[in-house]
Amino acid sequence: MKIICTKSDLVHAVSIVSKAVSNNTTLPILKCILIEASTENIKLTANDMELGIETTIDGQIHQPGKIAIEAKLFSEIVRKLPDNDITIETDDQYKATITCEKACFQIMGQEGEEFPSLPEIEKNQSITLSQFSLKEVIRQTIFSISDNENTKLMTGELFEVKDDKLSVVSLDGHRISIRHIELKDHYDPFKVVVPGKTLQEIVKIISGEMDENVSIYVTSKHILFEFDNTRVVSRLLEGEYYKISQMLSSDYETKITINKKEFLNCIDRASLLIRESDKKPIIIDIADHSLKLNINSFFGSMEEEILIQKEGRDLLIGFNPKFLMDVLRVIDDEEINIYLVNPKAPCYIKDDAGTYNYLILPVNFNH
Amino acid sequence: MKIICTKSDLVHAVSIVSKAVSNNTTLPILKCILIEASTENIKLTANDMELGIETTIDGQIHQPGKIAIEAKLFSEIVRKLPDNDITIETDDQYKATITCEKACFQIMGQEGEEFPSLPEIEKNQSITLSQFSLKEVIRQTIFSISDNENTKLMTGELFEVKDDKLSVVSLDGHRISIRHIELKDHYDPFKVVVPGKTLQEIVKIISGEMDENVSIYVTSKHILFEFDNTRVVSRLLEGEYYKISQMLSSDYETKITINKKEFLNCIDRASLLIRESDKKPIIIDIADHSLKLNINSFFGSMEEEILIQKEGRDLLIGFNPKFLMDVLRVIDDEEINIYLVNPKAPCYIKDDAGTYNYLILPVNFNH
Repeated sequence: MKIICTKSDLVHAVSIVSKAVSNNTTLPILKCILIEASTENIKLTANDMELGIETTIDGQIHQPGKIAIEAKLFSEIVRKLPDNDITIETDDQYKATITCEKACFQIMGQEGEEFPSLPEIEKNQSITLSQFSLKEVIRQTIFSISDNENTKLMTGELFEVKDDKLSVVSLDGHRISIRHIELKDHYDPFKVVVPGKTLQEIVKIISGEMDENVSIYVTSKHILFEFDNTRVVSRLLEGEYYKISQMLSSDYETKITINKKEFLNCIDRASLLIRESDKKPIIIDIADHSLKLNINSFFGSMEEEILIQKEGRDLLIGFNPKFLMDVLRVIDDEEINIYLVNPKAPCYIKDDAGTYNYLILPVNFNH
Repeated sequence: MKIICTKSDLVHAVSIVSKAVSNNTTLPILKCILIEASTENIKLTANDMELGIETTIDGQIHQPGKIAIEAKLFSEIVRKLPDNDITIETDDQYKATITCEKACFQIMGQEGEEFPSLPEIEKNQSITLSQFSLKEVIRQTIFSISDNENTKLMTGELFEVKDDKLSVVSLDGHRISIRHIELKDHYDPFKVVVPGKTLQEIVKIISGEMDENVSIYVTSKHILFEFDNTRVVSRLLEGEYYKISQMLSSDYETKITINKKEFLNCIDRASLLIRESDKKPIIIDIADHSLKLNINSFFGSMEEEILIQKEGRDLLIGFNPKFLMDVLRVIDDEEINIYLVNPKAPCYIKDDAGTYNYLILPVNFNH
């Protein structure tokens, strides 16, 4: 193989596919990036067997071929070369010679044929949304997945398409995050659970531009995200996702409208007096026109009052401050509505348009 | 005590004095910041018994007094309060009430009288230089102090004043860094060794502006840096510093002039193939008009050529790449001169004006 491409193209492509490089030490080939030069283009691929990413770049192909090169070293070398054309040439012993201006590296690669190829995805229907929407919807829900491998389905997010709507759901046993996105077309319905890790990596790769799109294809076992020159293929999590509709209710006894930023800053301050291990709740005292936030801990006490609009009963209720902050941080609205029932029942933070619904379970506290 | 000051003043002052807060767990008072309101001003002090910092801010003093408050918690609280006036009030049980807008924190402090006061510094002669010069000279030398507590003097830097010149020197047994600064006046000579930690903290606090000054006072045991509203007092390291002049030589067999950035980038690339633990040198082959850099390691090999101007003999010499890079990173000149003797003798990187002189010992290599 002998190819020439620009440093910037190569750095960009390597940084994209690196997200799927494995840390697995038992299969060294998975720590590599596969570089494949056909007669048409140069393709880079990484694959940790759960997640696979490939992307193509332009360049001069003097001799087609393929080689697998250890990703970390290759990425560092490429990044530190001068900003100019880079030549990569391999011999039949899998030695790669990487040249740029007067710098010349030689490193050992591995046989490209040994690299596991990405699964073939049958391309039926694809749904299309902007990179911006996909990035946002993941950011706005990913915080409430679980990291407990015993409840495997909770480590992923439900992507459900029905008619012209995409719903994204995550939950961890204490809270549920739901976001809806209007799609531009009607689609055949599907429901898949995408691993959280895949989504976390996708967010890092997509540009987040409004006018650049992602196409999403699903099969029974895989999901494929296609954008720019890049394809991201991920296994799906198997099993039936939780029946969310049974957990939601629109009954409430108390409804408050509060300035999001004031509320967030106030909880943020209060949580200074809590260490994660304490599991101390913050206590919220809802009365007409005002909400009082209270925390008492080993480190001291804090009290603050915020003006609110309120309908219904007064209420004293405790929350894990982190759960509230996670939600408040991803809502763009200036004012938010919170619906409550009693100190034992979940509260809902949701908008009138129905684009989001966040459920949080309260925490017991000694009154 | 009852004081009112702005959040921004308080945040700024706390961030300055925090650099001298101790991590010592046996003397809890050293983990505190002392807040002292006299009839004139509000003073914040931290003191880990090696390094002490005090700074004053303006504010309304409703009732003079003093209190010591745990630095980390106090700093976090102050930072997270709204951008407005902050009131701090203490009672006779050392409880501090910190109020800002509608937020109110109560935390336990400690008796201010127990806080160790900073040593009194007799103010004789002071030398004055710009914050910019002080910050630069520390940055340009601090990398070659030692972190080995067994050679205590090497963990500090020599500050030597003679006539109208300040010389700053650091060394770690493998290399020496020397910088000279012209002062605006003549001074009585002195030689002190300032702990590296003090200098690392000073660099973080001073602004680095050309037109803001620092005054430096020394006694037999302490050094005092005065700037803006801040005083930094540090113990000195005791003992006779190394006789540098005996280690320097201006004889050479080979002199090269090389583009600094090209050389730095080239070494940076080469060091990708080295792990710290390897202690592999890079090998530099100096011939007429060109320098060839060579590295061979478990990870691969790299070779690069750089055009140079050369006087004297050809030379093959090995270096720890980190030592070269440390020096190259802090030299602002575009072209640098390197003076060499043979593969066993130190090399010198120095300018014609005599503002800097960096000595680096070479490393043996198997030819």
